[in-house]
Formats: sequence, structure tokens, C-alpha cells
Amino acid sequence: MGITPAELSALAARITPVEETWLQAGRARQDDLTKPPGSLGELEAVGIRLCGIAAQCPPPVPSHPRVIVFAADHGVYAQGVTPWPQEVSVQMAAGIAIGFAGVSVISRAFGAEVEVFDVGLLQHAEGTTDRRIAAGTADFTQGPAMTREQALAAVSVGIEAADAAIDAGTDVLVPGEVGLSNTTPAAALTAALTGANVAEVTGRGAGADDEMLAHKVSVIQQGLETGRVAELAAQGDALGVLAAVGGFEHAAMAGLMLAAAARRVPVVLDGVVSCSAALVARAFAPSVAGYLIAGHAGVEPAITAAHEALGIRGLVDLGLRLGEGSGGALALPIVRAAALVMNEMGTFSGQGVSKA
Amino acid sequence: MGITPAELSALAARITPVEETWLQAGRARQDDLTKPPGSLGELEAVGIRLCGIAAQCPPPVPSHPRVIVFAADHGVYAQGVTPWPQEVSVQMAAGIAIGFAGVSVISRAFGAEVEVFDVGLLQHAEGTTDRRIAAGTADFTQGPAMTREQALAAVSVGIEAADAAIDAGTDVLVPGEVGLSNTTPAAALTAALTGANVAEVTGRGAGADDEMLAHKVSVIQQGLETGRVAELAAQGDALGVLAAVGGFEHAAMAGLMLAAAARRVPVVLDGVVSCSAALVARAFAPSVAGYLIAGHAGVEPAITAAHEALGIRGLVDLGLRLGEGSGGALALPIVRAAALVMNEMGTFSGQGVSKA
Repeated sequence: MGITPAELSALAARITPVEETWLQAGRARQDDLTKPPGSLGELEAVGIRLCGIAAQCPPPVPSHPRVIVFAADHGVYAQGVTPWPQEVSVQMAAGIAIGFAGVSVISRAFGAEVEVFDVGLLQHAEGTTDRRIAAGTADFTQGPAMTREQALAAVSVGIEAADAAIDAGTDVLVPGEVGLSNTTPAAALTAALTGANVAEVTGRGAGADDEMLAHKVSVIQQGLETGRVAELAAQGDALGVLAAVGGFEHAAMAGLMLAAAARRVPVVLDGVVSCSAALVARAFAPSVAGYLIAGHAGVEPAITAAHEALGIRGLVDLGLRLGEGSGGALALPIVRAAALVMNEMGTFSGQGVSKA
Repeated sequence: MGITPAELSALAARITPVEETWLQAGRARQDDLTKPPGSLGELEAVGIRLCGIAAQCPPPVPSHPRVIVFAADHGVYAQGVTPWPQEVSVQMAAGIAIGFAGVSVISRAFGAEVEVFDVGLLQHAEGTTDRRIAAGTADFTQGPAMTREQALAAVSVGIEAADAAIDAGTDVLVPGEVGLSNTTPAAALTAALTGANVAEVTGRGAGADDEMLAHKVSVIQQGLETGRVAELAAQGDALGVLAAVGGFEHAAMAGLMLAAAARRVPVVLDGVVSCSAALVARAFAPSVAGYLIAGHAGVEPAITAAHEALGIRGLVDLGLRLGEGSGGALALPIVRAAALVMNEMGTFSGQGVSKA
């Protein structure tokens, strides 16, 4: 049902590193804009990154953003890692499709389309696109969360969603997600793929108290041991790691990132789930990192760990911990502004403004 | 030419504290939105603040932003506190009016109008509205930067600009500025009005090196002594402090804030100059602080000191140090999103989503 490992390798091979020539052209342009050097701060870094991604300077202005939300449930929910009832996954996914969720409102405000794919909720959510792999993953403390075939199928959904969006004119993507307890697989993936200590990258998700947090850490440790994940990671078996402790939405998000990077489309990351998916994507194709822009800085410690590993820094830091893609969507106007200043500001070479 | 001290006091008296009843209504609404409590982070705080400002819940959505830029020159430029030639003030003001400056591009991207008032450049800048008080302030190391009458006249320009904008439908204001060496009076005002040590609140502005920074600190200290500013501040003589070490644009920005607050319109602050002007406005009318939203966190240390004194926190922190209003303009989409989520998200009471 999904792509084959060979096809995934071929996709990964099509992702070329962002081009140093164009990063340099971007830096030169920033220094020619009529402003003190560096005075646009991170906006300059994002603009330069956009030049590298598009191999164009000034960069194209991202004008057709799309937030693609993948919704799924998780077997590890049974271990009691979140205080919320599991039916909230379906309710949230349906709410996003209807348009009254946080990410719906923020996306609408910024002219971003929102699509929701059910990649494996316990029950199908009304209004979402049915691309279900299964009714939730298996409990990773008892065995692999997914088979390798299921993981590849979920990756495929993300690839196809990104390709369809880009074919339709989308020029910047935000991966979003819904899935009760999905910060648990996110922390597991982050620990496995960065080598960080589990306790250091495990956060409270949507509201775990101290006791639940300690329990969540031990559940993740158990999952990593059950799946012999350290061994898989050491062998460079990214698919094995993903199948062992990931979720359908993590897999789909990784696929989305690979497909976007292969077509030179920037991806603005959201929170802990998308950041852990980015680590999965990078394990498949190291060059993907150059196409990623960090939307929101971390409340969840795994965000910080992933950003460090990916060499990126969150554009906004508003203490959001809603997920859904909301933090990525909130950063879209800043990404757009970063491209616009490079296109529309005056230049010293053109306007004859005095320099220091 | 400007308002009288009595008229200024009357304006200050019309500013009522943001209403606790409506802040409470805003908090209750946030807790009813379908999301984990607090999961929208600072967006929630801004939304609640907007309820208090408008005395309405959910709050009106700011949809007609205007950036009002005040441009002026400074006598203290003669003391060598910036590496940039002074003619850049006129060039920048003209550039904003034409529309190729950083703030022009960012404002255009976010649907904000931009207006530029010349309140005292050395030479009038083409395309800007002529409301000149004088050709630059006097050097505050030698005597007061302005007479009290000049300070009141500059405050008046800001009041009139805000009133005209609000009459024309503007529902959120960003004060911007242009003026070579205007971070020097900003630091002087901040030290005077917060009681902070001059060295602690003096930054590099548009590019002072270590030596120039040390010189800038001593210039400010000299100005504060010459003007006996500590004495004026202790007497609560805000107008005296402003006249002694301020600039025309600082005065105009303070006037803008007072007029906006009197009409319950939120003001999104930009960088160090607008933050120091906010301290001036607060010295005239303590309740003004409730109407201010911090746009950008500080590179300049005086921003942090002012935010602390005002009890606000920058919404974005992108390392901008361009001025012009650019950091305030960059925060506009976030302010808009904060209002929209309170208006358009689903509620637990309305939609029957399960709670934790």
C-alpha cells in the first residue's frame, strides 16, 4: 500500500543540499538593503535560507501556505500518559476540519489552507480525508507500534499530500497533527535519534502532572528497550526506529518533509511532534534539514533538542503547547515578511543612502 | 502651538484603567475554548488584554492597523554617539514615505497603513507630513533638549495623529520613529524614569562599538546631570524630564499613546524609542500601561527595563534593531490572531468536546 524502501531511498536521493552559492547571494543582498548590517536579525537568516531553498535571490515570496494535519491514535495511550480522554483525538480532528480549532482560526487569519488526513484514528473523524493505516498504532511497550509496511504506508500519505498541495500551487507547508498521547512517541523518537536521555526530552504534553511525567519517562524507556531501538538507531535503520516507537502522524509528517524538500518547498515546523518527525526525515535524508524553518520555540524539551540537532531556532516563542500546527501557522507571516524585505526594500547600491 | 499642561492633565485623566471585569471575562472565555487550559500561551494573555482594553469579550479584532512614524534629529548627535552620518535621518524618513524601508515592506505585508510625520528633522524630508517643531533638538549635554513648549507641541502632534487615525477607522496603532542617535535620549529617559543605572540601559543603537558605547554612557550621564533630571523625576515632573533629555519623536510617541488609550485603542510598541516614550506616557498617566502591548523583545537593554517597568513581554524576539516601527509591525499578525481565536474557536460549553 505504501512506497517501497527502494522508492523511499530514491526520493531521499533527490533532495539536494540547499545551495551555498544562493546562501551567499542572499547574504550579499541582505548587506545591500538600506539598514544597518544585521539589523533585521532572524528575518535575515530566514530570508537567506529561502534563497538557498529556492536557488533564487531575492527569494520567491511564499504566498500560498497550506497546513496539512495528520490525525491518528496511539496504542501507548493505554499506558496512562495523558489526562485527556482518547475520544478527543476524533473530536479535535473533526473540529479542525469544520474550522473552529486553534489552527483553523490562525490559518484562516493568515490565508493558509488547512487539510486534515485521518491516518489512523480509532474512529474516522467526519470531514477529514480517509487515509487510515489502522485504527491506532499498537502499544510500543509491548512490541513495535507499527509494522515497517504500515510505517511506509503512513510516510506515503505525507508524500502524496505534499505533492498534491505543491501541484495545486502551495509554496510553503506547515505539518500539523492530532493524536492523544502523541508527544510520547515524539519524545521516544527524539531520544532515539539525538542520543539524548529520555528524561531530558520528555515533557508534559497537554497537561501531565509530575507523577504522570515520571511515568511517561518510564513508559518511553520501556518502549525503547522493547523495540531494541538503540540498536536500530546505531545501524542507521530509520524506518525500524520509526516503526518501533513512532506514530502514523509522525511518519506522514516525515514523508511530507521529504517530498517538500525534493521539490525545494520550505517547511515551517510546529511543535514537538513535527520536530521529532523532522529528525526521522533527516535520518532518511540528511539534506532535508536545509529546507526546514523552525516556527515555534519549545515548551516541550524535545523541541529544543530537535532544533539543536537540526541547527535551527524557533521564530516565535509564545509558550504555545496546543499542537495541531498552530505554532507553525503563527510563524507564517514572519516567513513571508522575511522574503518580502529581500524583494522590496531599497538597496544602498540602488538608492544612494549614506552608509556608516 | 501645542496643548497646555492643563489640557495634557485633562487628557491623562480621561484614561481609565483597563477594566478588571472584562479581563476576568476574557480569562473565563480562554478557559472555555476547546484546548488545554493555557495552551495558547502568550496569545491568551494578549487576547485577555484586548478584552480589558475594549471592555468587550470576545474582543474586537484589530483589522485596520496603522504605523505612525515620527522623524526628528537630535542635538546630542554632535557628541559622537553613532557611527552613521546625520543626513541618514532625512533619507530614512523619505524612504519610509516612498515605501521601500523595512517598516514599509512589513506594514504592507500585513495590511497596515504607514504615515510619516517630520516633527523636527534638520531638513524636511520629501513625502512626509510637515509638523516640524524645530530643526532638531538642542544638545542635552549643554542644556535642555527642548523647551517645555516645544515638548508640549511635539506631544500634540502625536495626539492629533492618533486621533485622526482613529477617526479614520484605525483600531490598533504602532508608533515608529526615525532619528539618528535617538537611542541616546531613549536611554536617558529610561534611566530617569525607571531609576536604572545609565550603563545598564544604554545599548549600541545602530552600531556603536565598545568605545563609542562607553562614550554614549558618559554623554547620557552628563545630560542627566546638566538637566538635573533626577530632581525633576523625583518631583514627578514628567514634562521637565522629557524636555531635558528627550527628543521630538519621543514626545510625539508619548502623545500618541495617551490619545489612543483615552479612546481604548491598543498600541503595539516597537523598540527602545517607543518603550522609553511609553515610560513618559506612563509618567503622565499611569493607566496608559494597560493599553500597551509589547511588540518586540529587546536587543537594547532599555527595552527590557521598560518592559519590566510596564509589566509587559515582547511578543516576538527576532533580534531586530532597525527601529522605524518594524518590530511593532511584525507583531501585528500575532495580535490579530490573539483576538481571532477568542472570537472564532469552538467552546467546551458550545461544542461538547470532552475535558481532561
